[in-house]
Amino acid sequence: MRDFSKDHSSLALNTATLGHNVEGHGAGWSPEQIIDACAARGMAGIVFWRREIGDRAVEIGERVRAAGMRVVGLCRTPYITGSEAPGTLDEARASVDMAAALGTDVLTIVTGGTEPGTKGVLESQKKLADRVSDLAEYAAKTGVNLALEPLNPMFGGNRTCLFTVREAMNVCRAIAAPNVGIAVDVYHVWWDTTLTESLAEAKGRILGYHLCDWLEATGDMLLDRGMMGDGVVDLKSIRRDVESAGYAGACEVEVFSAQDWWLRDPNEVLDTMVERFRTVC
Amino acid sequence: MRDFSKDHSSLALNTATLGHNVEGHGAGWSPEQIIDACAARGMAGIVFWRREIGDRAVEIGERVRAAGMRVVGLCRTPYITGSEAPGTLDEARASVDMAAALGTDVLTIVTGGTEPGTKGVLESQKKLADRVSDLAEYAAKTGVNLALEPLNPMFGGNRTCLFTVREAMNVCRAIAAPNVGIAVDVYHVWWDTTLTESLAEAKGRILGYHLCDWLEATGDMLLDRGMMGDGVVDLKSIRRDVESAGYAGACEVEVFSAQDWWLRDPNEVLDTMVERFRTVC
Repeated sequence: MRDFSKDHSSLALNTATLGHNVEGHGAGWSPEQIIDACAARGMAGIVFWRREIGDRAVEIGERVRAAGMRVVGLCRTPYITGSEAPGTLDEARASVDMAAALGTDVLTIVTGGTEPGTKGVLESQKKLADRVSDLAEYAAKTGVNLALEPLNPMFGGNRTCLFTVREAMNVCRAIAAPNVGIAVDVYHVWWDTTLTESLAEAKGRILGYHLCDWLEATGDMLLDRGMMGDGVVDLKSIRRDVESAGYAGACEVEVFSAQDWWLRDPNEVLDTMVERFRTVC
Repeated sequence: MRDFSKDHSSLALNTATLGHNVEGHGAGWSPEQIIDACAARGMAGIVFWRREIGDRAVEIGERVRAAGMRVVGLCRTPYITGSEAPGTLDEARASVDMAAALGTDVLTIVTGGTEPGTKGVLESQKKLADRVSDLAEYAAKTGVNLALEPLNPMFGGNRTCLFTVREAMNVCRAIAAPNVGIAVDVYHVWWDTTLTESLAEAKGRILGYHLCDWLEATGDMLLDRGMMGDGVVDLKSIRRDVESAGYAGACEVEVFSAQDWWLRDPNEVLDTMVERFRTVC
């Protein structure tokens, strides 16, 4: 297991930690401000959300690399299943193009929920596998990998049809494309006591590792995540399992926190991230 | 699998469906009004919450039986683990006494969350097993069975340390007391694609089966459950698995719904329960 106690060169910022994933929230920093602040702190890189990029993907990607970092990933495709998914893969393909233009090799997929007219999740998972299979073929041409992210079961219904690492790997195996893997976010999987076993089965397939914490008394399903160390997640234990499964990439901090961290000065947020990364992750 | 299409004699009301689990909510009907309304509709019985019972357990139990029904269960012990659990089992023992006085043989346990000073859930599960083991010994003297209820992972942290049927059964097996089993609530377990398998392993240990639905767009973690048929849960499939595991008891409807069903006339709620039970459960 890597020793981060004096080294945060594997730390990355997911800009959701500054509230940039949701319209009307957050610091409102430009990509350039974010790049400078992360580079000044010696981070590995940044994960952006599509809404920040617009038509400036090439320019922003180059700016990140010029600052000595890399674009660690892009969040995310539109939903692929469920009633909120667009009827075609056009927008998903456009998000692949954006990832390629940014020069990142990881595009995250939050799957979307239960397909209209069906119950449970099995039929939705089958549709998901079919559609991601198509998308993977397109993405392979541009060198982009697709990371299926299982979400906490509270997001079943309209946001996901993948709830555990095991299920995400089942769909991965069904797709059987070399550029499809999974993303592991501690917020979504911390409670799963079969994680050691299921992460071992994900060997070589982990494309991203997301950090935050689960607050003991979570007040809001979506926007009340904790900073690492402030909650009940056994962070070191999960990282040990993730690294045993071959993951040696960046650890991206993704804290959705409308009532706490998003209200603070971004400089304080970034400094806290560095300190917590070295001490509790 | 039982055919309920013309028969709702297995249907029970959990009074949370009338908002009686939360102070300041709900219809405010007396236990007697509830008993009369359920008996008039030919239901199997009622599950009460401790706050409704006060010191009238014997009287209310007798009233239920005089109406031709039974007290299907009592909700619930105080938390057994986590920072909100009382420091002793005294209150839990009092809830066993209340169940016995009501004349019900099922007392539900919502475990409580992660033990103070620990991370993750494994240590909390061990403490849970120890404490429920003690409580089971006490409960055995009064003929009360304890039903460990796994909750949706969104309730990790402060409300539960059991997230799946499999985990609840692991703790059950660790306790190895004849009067400890599990409760299966579709709201908490609907998303789990290993359910068929894990319910099969729970054969003979299922003490309660709870019905509601998971709304596609759930707006609140606690109080936004759907009436059966209004959401994405594959209700018949879960009941098939529950019955294959030997469960032949009552199906209790437990809909926490502050913004919808709790605002309606309880008579409408009860009539809807009957109709949905016959058609979609």
